[in-house]
Amino acid sequence: MPIEIPEVVIERLPVYARALADLEAQGREVVSSQELGEKLGVTPAQIRKDLSYFGRFGKQGRGYNVRRLSEHLRHILGLDRTWDMALVGVGPLGQAILHYGGFAPQGFRVVEAFDASPAVIGRTIGGIVVRDVRDLKRRLAERKVDIGIVAVPAAAAQEVIDTLVECGIKAILNYAPIAAQVPPGVHIRRVDPVLELQSMTYYLKNQDSAPK
Amino acid sequence: MPIEIPEVVIERLPVYARALADLEAQGREVVSSQELGEKLGVTPAQIRKDLSYFGRFGKQGRGYNVRRLSEHLRHILGLDRTWDMALVGVGPLGQAILHYGGFAPQGFRVVEAFDASPAVIGRTIGGIVVRDVRDLKRRLAERKVDIGIVAVPAAAAQEVIDTLVECGIKAILNYAPIAAQVPPGVHIRRVDPVLELQSMTYYLKNQDSAPK
Repeated sequence: MPIEIPEVVIERLPVYARALADLEAQGREVVSSQELGEKLGVTPAQIRKDLSYFGRFGKQGRGYNVRRLSEHLRHILGLDRTWDMALVGVGPLGQAILHYGGFAPQGFRVVEAFDASPAVIGRTIGGIVVRDVRDLKRRLAERKVDIGIVAVPAAAAQEVIDTLVECGIKAILNYAPIAAQVPPGVHIRRVDPVLELQSMTYYLKNQDSAPK
Repeated sequence: MPIEIPEVVIERLPVYARALADLEAQGREVVSSQELGEKLGVTPAQIRKDLSYFGRFGKQGRGYNVRRLSEHLRHILGLDRTWDMALVGVGPLGQAILHYGGFAPQGFRVVEAFDASPAVIGRTIGGIVVRDVRDLKRRLAERKVDIGIVAVPAAAAQEVIDTLVECGIKAILNYAPIAAQVPPGVHIRRVDPVLELQSMTYYLKNQDSAPK
């Protein structure tokens, strides 16, 4: 029986994978947990502990083989295949998502899109025909998708998420500014620009109060 | 002279602040670094070290006073005031940003919006009149803003970021899928839905391979 790996460890792995991909692109062959830690602001002990869940990657005092660890992490995370996604909500945000150029190079593609508004139902946006959200269950019964993306207003988000869960979807990316509830076994992540902003205001504040 | 605090520590503080706000809302008075660490997936030692940069908050064996630490962090981070933002790029994503309900309750407001397209220049979206991006420098010379939001296509993003830096803006939230360059003293964060997706595929993959 596999060991239960804490969700927070899994959440850090894509960050490690991206840093390793950068190092690989720079032609680096070996990296220490110390250097990787400094780069990412995590203690070397945390990195060693996180990676130890998946086997033995480094040799004491010799560091990690960049390419081997990078490939292994990509395999562990399932980044070596394509994932199909269904988008619910094709307002301004949903349309932006359908046009977003950052998903495809990483193996994520939107294959279904749904909305409640006659203004967008039937339109083709970013190569995808927008369907009536009332047909969502029927469509997703016919065409299995891996991930649901929720881009509806806050007030409608929980209901949409419940529907996606009923359709058997186990991973949801939520753009609505609510802390949504999902049952055990379903994973949800929120795209949260506010946390990003809040990590910069410290500098603005201190700059304001600095002597001129 | 103040100690230089690592940027990665500053980036973790909003997460601590949010967890403390949640605990406060639940009526909790005290929390240990152990419990906070378990909640957030950070070692208790990391939390104690991060907070030690800002003074002595906890007593050995007694934990942190939730309200006092929460208020202190909000003050340190500058979350107890309003921050003005200028948006560049009012395509589908920019329009979604102008309608986003998550900024205002946290003290962030868009006060200027710019685009290059005659189709949106002059239109009022989310209460903001969209200006010609060619007027950006003149407008921002007259009205100081704290933060720039970049929602233009990837190919145009670095040039827009350079212009915002020239206008004296020290904090940029970048929605374009590029790793943009900024000079020292300017802070930039990227809203990156792909990292969120990549932290869920691990579970999908393992579920796929589980015995049926």
